[in-house]
Amino acid sequence: MTGTQTTIPIHRLTRAGAQATRDAVAIEAPLQIRVEGRAVAVAMRTPGHDRELAAGFLLSEGVIAARDDVFEISACPSAQPGAEGGGAAAVDILMTRPGTVDFDRLTRHVFTASSCGLCGKAVVEEVLRQHPPLAAASHAAVRVPAPVIFSLPDALRAAQATFATTGGLHASALFDLEGHLLAVHEDVGRHNALDKLLGEAWLAGRWPLDRHLLMLSGRVSFELVQKALVARLPVIAAISAPSSLAVDTAEAAGITLCGFVRDGRMNLYTHPERILDAAA
Amino acid sequence: MTGTQTTIPIHRLTRAGAQATRDAVAIEAPLQIRVEGRAVAVAMRTPGHDRELAAGFLLSEGVIAARDDVFEISACPSAQPGAEGGGAAAVDILMTRPGTVDFDRLTRHVFTASSCGLCGKAVVEEVLRQHPPLAAASHAAVRVPAPVIFSLPDALRAAQATFATTGGLHASALFDLEGHLLAVHEDVGRHNALDKLLGEAWLAGRWPLDRHLLMLSGRVSFELVQKALVARLPVIAAISAPSSLAVDTAEAAGITLCGFVRDGRMNLYTHPERILDAAA
Repeated sequence: MTGTQTTIPIHRLTRAGAQATRDAVAIEAPLQIRVEGRAVAVAMRTPGHDRELAAGFLLSEGVIAARDDVFEISACPSAQPGAEGGGAAAVDILMTRPGTVDFDRLTRHVFTASSCGLCGKAVVEEVLRQHPPLAAASHAAVRVPAPVIFSLPDALRAAQATFATTGGLHASALFDLEGHLLAVHEDVGRHNALDKLLGEAWLAGRWPLDRHLLMLSGRVSFELVQKALVARLPVIAAISAPSSLAVDTAEAAGITLCGFVRDGRMNLYTHPERILDAAA
Repeated sequence: MTGTQTTIPIHRLTRAGAQATRDAVAIEAPLQIRVEGRAVAVAMRTPGHDRELAAGFLLSEGVIAARDDVFEISACPSAQPGAEGGGAAAVDILMTRPGTVDFDRLTRHVFTASSCGLCGKAVVEEVLRQHPPLAAASHAAVRVPAPVIFSLPDALRAAQATFATTGGLHASALFDLEGHLLAVHEDVGRHNALDKLLGEAWLAGRWPLDRHLLMLSGRVSFELVQKALVARLPVIAAISAPSSLAVDTAEAAGITLCGFVRDGRMNLYTHPERILDAAA
């Protein structure tokens, strides 16, 4: 284990049955970037080199250019160092000429935060305040046989006409509880692909999606789990790995998160009770 | 060719030599999202289903929830339909109760735009206005033998201690013109990994990076090329595919863009003159 990953308990499911084990996930945690004491951005990042991240971000945004534009860049240590890889939860940038910063141009999505930045727990709590966790009834109502989940990647690939050609598109797909494909969208941005999928269902009056399965072609970040919760989706299946904060958010939201769904196996990161092990 | 991809001329380089051919790239183009006539976000997306994308985005942001929150969602057609897959360049959302929108909370990174949204050309021009293209002298000064580029993926993988374990981290690496690894950073977000790399070099006074090579572990988006230009990096090599707008931006910025660098071959999307074909 390094500062960029953490190991968590999971269930590994194959056609032969389930096994409790542990798996490494990449750490994702919020970093607040503050200029002259004002929060201008929250990066959902892997902890480490936070001062460098803040400097690179402000360079890209055109806020700083020459080294002497910056008086000081200091990382504010996290209140929970062990829990999130030991990275700082905020970076403070003091400018040599504070009056030159155009805050209106700079300010992005900014969470309410304590005086020393953000931790993952606060971000999850803020999400759940806006969108409560799935009800206990949902856990009883939605039961999916493992073979249905195993079948989703092939169904997604068959629907992805262009992926094989360019290798440059992410996909999000919506399935019913029996594994029938209802919709698929592709995009260079994985959050865009999911926004299209959810927006389409919402515009069609098919909402909430509390009796559906979501399949993602790649990795699972915090933001994708947040969007699934908005739609009340009880199950997320993904071809690739979730981040630590995606797992924490799914756990708290009551969402079943299946990762590495490929070749007849999957890792169950949260709420495994919804997936019916064929061998059970 | 569908609306999500386009084919462009490239040079395919292997150890046996170079060949002019064509390759499909996923289309990336800006979409302006406007609420009550006010630009609240620009999504760098693959065209198509733009109304759905806008609805999904506003659902995720908590701006809309019930169907009757929205009076109308209309897509404004692009001024250059053929060039960007025929998608609209802006979506207008009219609310049923306009007074309830909290614009301060919502507004993100917003480019200056014409009355009917954004096109990729305008975005590239805005980037070049802030950061001029690499000088012609840079093209003469930086020459890299193809075998150096072919060696970068192995060097990156060797440096990526954690990638193999979690499968959840992107990497950005900096090399000198002889292919020696100078720095590598990993992150759940690929823009974060590059921000860390650039911020570190900048903080160390190693700036600009006009005699260096950038290696990326995944795909290449517009935003990553923009960051490379800020650092004056003349060459980007990536394991995977670039988007259409990444190619357009690299072309206009004078940056050499190498994609699908793996197994002793690469696709040269822009400014191939910097890469010395071993067979030549």
